[in-house]
Amino acid sequence: MAIKVHGVPVSTCTAGVLLCLHEKGLHYELLPVDLAAGAHKQDPYLSLNPFGQIPAVEDGEVSLFESRAINRYLARKHKDIGTDLLRANSLPESALVETWMEVEAHQFHGPATAILHEIIVNPMYGIASNEQTIETEMEKLGKVLDVYEERLSKYKYLAGENYTLADLQHIPNLVYFMKTTKAEAITCRPHVGLAKQVIG
Amino acid sequence: MAIKVHGVPVSTCTAGVLLCLHEKGLHYELLPVDLAAGAHKQDPYLSLNPFGQIPAVEDGEVSLFESRAINRYLARKHKDIGTDLLRANSLPESALVETWMEVEAHQFHGPATAILHEIIVNPMYGIASNEQTIETEMEKLGKVLDVYEERLSKYKYLAGENYTLADLQHIPNLVYFMKTTKAEAITCRPHVGLAKQVIG
Ligand SMILES: N[C@@H](CCC(=O)N[C@@H](CS)C(=O)NCC(=O)O)C(=O)O
Ligand SMILES: N[C@@H](CCC(=O)N[C@@H](CS)C(=O)NCC(=O)O)C(=O)O
Repeated sequence: MAIKVHGVPVSTCTAGVLLCLHEKGLHYELLPVDLAAGAHKQDPYLSLNPFGQIPAVEDGEVSLFESRAINRYLARKHKDIGTDLLRANSLPESALVETWMEVEAHQFHGPATAILHEIIVNPMYGIASNEQTIETEMEKLGKVLDVYEERLSKYKYLAGENYTLADLQHIPNLVYFMKTTKAEAITCRPHVGLAKQVIG
Repeated sequence: MAIKVHGVPVSTCTAGVLLCLHEKGLHYELLPVDLAAGAHKQDPYLSLNPFGQIPAVEDGEVSLFESRAINRYLARKHKDIGTDLLRANSLPESALVETWMEVEAHQFHGPATAILHEIIVNPMYGIASNEQTIETEMEKLGKVLDVYEERLSKYKYLAGENYTLADLQHIPNLVYFMKTTKAEAITCRPHVGLAKQVIG
């Protein structure tokens, strides 16, 4: 039975899960959630995720939500297919994957989504971008990217010599970010800029 | 060789790691970081965590940071001592631990720390608490606690019938929260209120 993904690919959180499914070459069924109609804030969707956010996943008996939790689950269940995204066979290597996954969640994600919200989401709703917010968040993001630049000048990927979930989790936000006028923050840092090859 | 923890117990992030070490009955050495002197923003601390935040941990060859990454590492390495905090032997159970750990990080943590910042941290620096912020964040937190109440009316702990990292990660913030005038948000929800027994 194919894995059911409830969400929409335009959402970065859903896209992260789809990326992981593709990386593992897994079959899945995408069940669109009608956000415009508020379907995510009503039953039956709330029984999949009581916080009313996408994505949620059903895999046989297992029903779960929160994109990073879904990806950890998929990576663990399908450890032996394709890339071992959690480096589960090595405790020191998996510790680094954990660390850099948390860095994505607690250092990168906040400023990245705040910037994308101002530059991409707000104008879609006729709201002007707040330049002050963009500047403040770009400064925070710049500091994070400086750490990445240093790290990636020593290692091929964030957690070491292998592509892992720590890298993957950055991609959905980066794909949108590269379409903005701020993309230079990525390309001006030579090692971070190599990420362009992964994003395509 | 004992595990080295760089941090201060008064910090909730450090406290989370100490809680995990105690839960596992592990020996550790606490190496205080002089935050007032800005030691966390300078070398040599920056070589432990380039983001200049506490805690960081050294365990033999393994050096890592980000409190939730540290706790996952400790729980995995010492899976067979005491409580299995990640339910690693069962894929469906570990999927629920992952989900509710992410809920802590992405739903609970934000409003909880914003409230504690206003009520506890700001007054320590002679800054008045912003009542408007407290109200907004209490509303968000209330919605999260409503989901927890529903969940804990069906299961003993967040991830099911066993105490896991998903519960543990909430404790440091809850300990401070219970000292505030807002503690009723916990005690007025009977199943969430049982957390008081865990916190002590
Ligand atoms: N931490 C969650 C965040 C989920 C999230 O924010 N989803 C967005 C789409 S990317 C959503 O559902 N937005 C609608 C809403 O929050 O009402 C995850 O990673 O899955
Ligand atoms: N996501 C990090 C957050 C670390 C963090 O915010 N640490 C605080 C103490 S609880 C700190 O170092 N504050 C000082 C600073 O950020 O300059 C973790 O969980 O370890």
